[in-house]
Amino acid sequence: MTEKILIIGGVAAGPKTACRLKRLNPEAEITIIDQDSLISYGGCGIPYYVSGDVPDEKELRSTSFHAVRDPLFFENAKGVVVRSRTRAEAIDRKNKRVSVTNLDTGQTEDLSYDKLVLCTGAMPNRAPIPGADLPGVFLISDLHQAIAIKDLIAKGKVGRTVVIGGGPIGIEMAESFGDLWGLETTIIEWMPQLLPRIIDPIFARMLTHHLTSHGITICTDEKVQSIQQEANGYRVVTDKQELGADLIVMAVGVRPRSDLARDAGLLVGPMGGIVVNSRLQTSDPNIYAAGDCIETNHLVSGKRAQAPFGSLANRQGRVVADNLAGIPSRFPGVVNSFIMKAFDIAIGATGMSLESALADGFDAGQVITAQSDRAHFFPTQAIIPLAMVFDKRTRKVLGVQGFGPMGDSILARLNAAAALIATGGTVEDFSDLELPYAPPFTTALDALNATANVAENALAGRLRAVAMEDFLAWMENPALHPDWRALDIRHPNEAKPFAEAFGERWLAIPYVEVRGRLAEVPDDQTLIIICDAGTRSYEIQCLLDGAGKRSTLVLGGGFNLVRRISVGWWPTK
Amino acid sequence: MTEKILIIGGVAAGPKTACRLKRLNPEAEITIIDQDSLISYGGCGIPYYVSGDVPDEKELRSTSFHAVRDPLFFENAKGVVVRSRTRAEAIDRKNKRVSVTNLDTGQTEDLSYDKLVLCTGAMPNRAPIPGADLPGVFLISDLHQAIAIKDLIAKGKVGRTVVIGGGPIGIEMAESFGDLWGLETTIIEWMPQLLPRIIDPIFARMLTHHLTSHGITICTDEKVQSIQQEANGYRVVTDKQELGADLIVMAVGVRPRSDLARDAGLLVGPMGGIVVNSRLQTSDPNIYAAGDCIETNHLVSGKRAQAPFGSLANRQGRVVADNLAGIPSRFPGVVNSFIMKAFDIAIGATGMSLESALADGFDAGQVITAQSDRAHFFPTQAIIPLAMVFDKRTRKVLGVQGFGPMGDSILARLNAAAALIATGGTVEDFSDLELPYAPPFTTALDALNATANVAENALAGRLRAVAMEDFLAWMENPALHPDWRALDIRHPNEAKPFAEAFGERWLAIPYVEVRGRLAEVPDDQTLIIICDAGTRSYEIQCLLDGAGKRSTLVLGGGFNLVRRISVGWWPTK
Repeated sequence: MTEKILIIGGVAAGPKTACRLKRLNPEAEITIIDQDSLISYGGCGIPYYVSGDVPDEKELRSTSFHAVRDPLFFENAKGVVVRSRTRAEAIDRKNKRVSVTNLDTGQTEDLSYDKLVLCTGAMPNRAPIPGADLPGVFLISDLHQAIAIKDLIAKGKVGRTVVIGGGPIGIEMAESFGDLWGLETTIIEWMPQLLPRIIDPIFARMLTHHLTSHGITICTDEKVQSIQQEANGYRVVTDKQELGADLIVMAVGVRPRSDLARDAGLLVGPMGGIVVNSRLQTSDPNIYAAGDCIETNHLVSGKRAQAPFGSLANRQGRVVADNLAGIPSRFPGVVNSFIMKAFDIAIGATGMSLESALADGFDAGQVITAQSDRAHFFPTQAIIPLAMVFDKRTRKVLGVQGFGPMGDSILARLNAAAALIATGGTVEDFSDLELPYAPPFTTALDALNATANVAENALAGRLRAVAMEDFLAWMENPALHPDWRALDIRHPNEAKPFAEAFGERWLAIPYVEVRGRLAEVPDDQTLIIICDAGTRSYEIQCLLDGAGKRSTLVLGGGFNLVRRISVGWWPTK
Repeated sequence: MTEKILIIGGVAAGPKTACRLKRLNPEAEITIIDQDSLISYGGCGIPYYVSGDVPDEKELRSTSFHAVRDPLFFENAKGVVVRSRTRAEAIDRKNKRVSVTNLDTGQTEDLSYDKLVLCTGAMPNRAPIPGADLPGVFLISDLHQAIAIKDLIAKGKVGRTVVIGGGPIGIEMAESFGDLWGLETTIIEWMPQLLPRIIDPIFARMLTHHLTSHGITICTDEKVQSIQQEANGYRVVTDKQELGADLIVMAVGVRPRSDLARDAGLLVGPMGGIVVNSRLQTSDPNIYAAGDCIETNHLVSGKRAQAPFGSLANRQGRVVADNLAGIPSRFPGVVNSFIMKAFDIAIGATGMSLESALADGFDAGQVITAQSDRAHFFPTQAIIPLAMVFDKRTRKVLGVQGFGPMGDSILARLNAAAALIATGGTVEDFSDLELPYAPPFTTALDALNATANVAENALAGRLRAVAMEDFLAWMENPALHPDWRALDIRHPNEAKPFAEAFGERWLAIPYVEVRGRLAEVPDDQTLIIICDAGTRSYEIQCLLDGAGKRSTLVLGGGFNLVRRISVGWWPTK
């Protein structure tokens, strides 16, 4: 059957829908329209183009076999008509027509369709502050902005940059400025941490520490109030300071581009995303939608969610194509898997953070570990802090977060976690998970298994832990909690400077000696047991519990975590 | 409750059981006996100790905080008594006693127990050939053998090594000889491929090619008949050749050490493993067993399986400890996840190979892809061939195999696959899998998702592929299949030498031109469509199907795979 398929939007979900559908139904007449001149590009690669890792923007819109994905390519190779610089103005659902304007000629016309697919994407928010639309303020909305930014930098016109927004895009842009161009770079985030809602505070602190050590200035809990043009660049005014800048990136979230759908009377959700069913059909059965412009289900929270990720746009495009071709495919929803590079580290998460889970009404708990990614005797071994968020009632794992050296070791753990979380896996399922093992890759009990085991111990009430934030606050200001003491079971050389700094509060008994020196361990104060990873501390907690001394708390992740957080003032070995 | 727990075996499952149980029940009186003097070591690290990556054998039996796990450590730190050099001779189940011999003094005694745990491990097979017990023939049975081997090499007494057995241990040992010591090394495997039953032939060929390019000689389909001592070393005689060697490693599989259990009347399975229920209880409810000495369930095949992996021994030890402490934990079974390093590559698998699945009666199919591990525009990008084995009836994924550069990119895909396979995931579940995405780590549609999509196309009958082995055979001997032709849609420069070598058989039409040159494509012969990864070939197959030309087959994985297989004779660009 020859059907006329019209697709609005030519970046990710649109071309995917078109190409898959053309393979399923070579007869289909498929037209993609897009208001931009550049289409079908890897938007997530923009920071790497700006940094110079990717030398030419064409690589972002090329295939793996080095063909540029322009309209001619789509016509010749794919049999799909692409009309770029063509804006959809309105949908006439009754007559199944879309009125469009050619942005070069100004000419308007009506395009008819049998089935319409909306892949209109998302648009970056522009903060409602004075100066937000000055020429030196860039939104990372499309490839043109990226090209303009790189141009300015390459011409030597940029020395100081300010990035407004500490989400993934803001951080990636800051890295690209700082890393390869050596620009003076400041991130300003109005929430109290980087990557808010995506990761929990301790992981954000590790990230902040790492970025800071690479010369990026991080300002959180700080609101930009205005941007002013000056003789020589710009001035960014916040509620705390004023900063000079030659270039400002505003990366304060995106919102679905759903006006066209709303104006046509299609159902649009409260967050602004087009409402679709699991086959990605809108409230008009002849119109589908996919990509950043839709709302979807969050498989963990059970709520509606925005999930503007290129990876999902591709999956959704496939589902739309299937349904248009008569194959009843479904898009089940999202778990919100995320990863990013920041200089020498990788940080990522899948599922929900503890904060998000609590905010969504879960009776959630969290454990944090800091184990080796591979056999401790293998030369490339590194510590990879992991967090596991779980539902205390159902024992389901709600989320996992990881922080480690750049490479794929964090990805490996998140991949396993994403797969299990999507299937409703419990803490026990994570303990049982049989991951491939060899010393160059993992440990006999993988860090992810070990984290699940810690969660199981916490759920059973055997492991009682102190929140790392609390402990850090007490260390910085011991008076905050009048009666805490530390039991430092690390090597005497590690414990010594702390014992000297904290005096009586800091009791040092090496791990192997505790069993023989039980009498020295007090039981009248909150005793924080401290080691490097938290594992030995838990052992000692069990031992002390057995001896009737139950006022202990374990510092999960131990000094492996503490060392990854900026703490400046206290003793270092 | 003070219970006397006796554990036989002190390498992996035994110490894990002891330490976990002591935490759960500090009152328990726990004794481990082991006939060896060295206990609690990471046996999987032996090849890295022999190679020199791990300088001291003590590191293999140290904790991550550098304490040597000797009997004193277990006593002081763990509260567990370890009696090394103590052999269990017999179990008197009625009186709950084990008679033991002190191997140093010859003294015998009876140890009583409330609960007994058998962690007797596995012993390496010694091939029943003349000379198998000569002093230069080493089994990788324990740390002493490893120390002896490294000693010989370090003293300069070894120039030529022969490794009998092309399984993981044999290959790792060969790598350690070849890589860091530069020894002349030959692997002899009696099956037609390396890693038989673990991976399928094409992946074995890629591995063989890589090992060969690093100077290891690989002989498959070859049986060792005898080993003879000579004036200067040894002579290994096979059914095809004779080889001189200074040191021979025999790595021809292991068998469960279950004699003690069998002699005590416990149920032992046909493969020699101790039979346990899912709580790891033997046929005597007061006796548990864990580690390499047991039989377990294969979660994919549904059959009983041996799975002698250190990672599983640790998980099982935890389960035994739980049950001894009154926590009803279960060990669900295995999927047989596997990974190894071989020089610069990583190779691994989880679940079943195609050969194993077919042998076990599955109506199984397989697809092979060769996509990028990360965004094709990211500098560190590499191709990672993946195979997916699936059940044609249930659409369940039975197994995944991967081959890629050394690093964690193969691990990352296998981790996700292992998690989903254990939950009975289908091809569609793999398509839907939402893995974390950013260009430095993955592609928008991860290679694992893409492989599932290819499997879905194959299951739907849309993708028809030629087996790579068949095609390679036809290329080597075109007369094997009288009427095959190639449609090479790669860049003309890539196709040219093949078109010249194969003449009329090799039709070259670049991918973007096929749609306009349909008339040139023949339909009267088996037409193998060839590209780099297989993706474009599938597109062209759809296109040709639409044009009524249905005699095509896609070469899955394309020349990305072909290039990774030793082929010597044919044209290279």
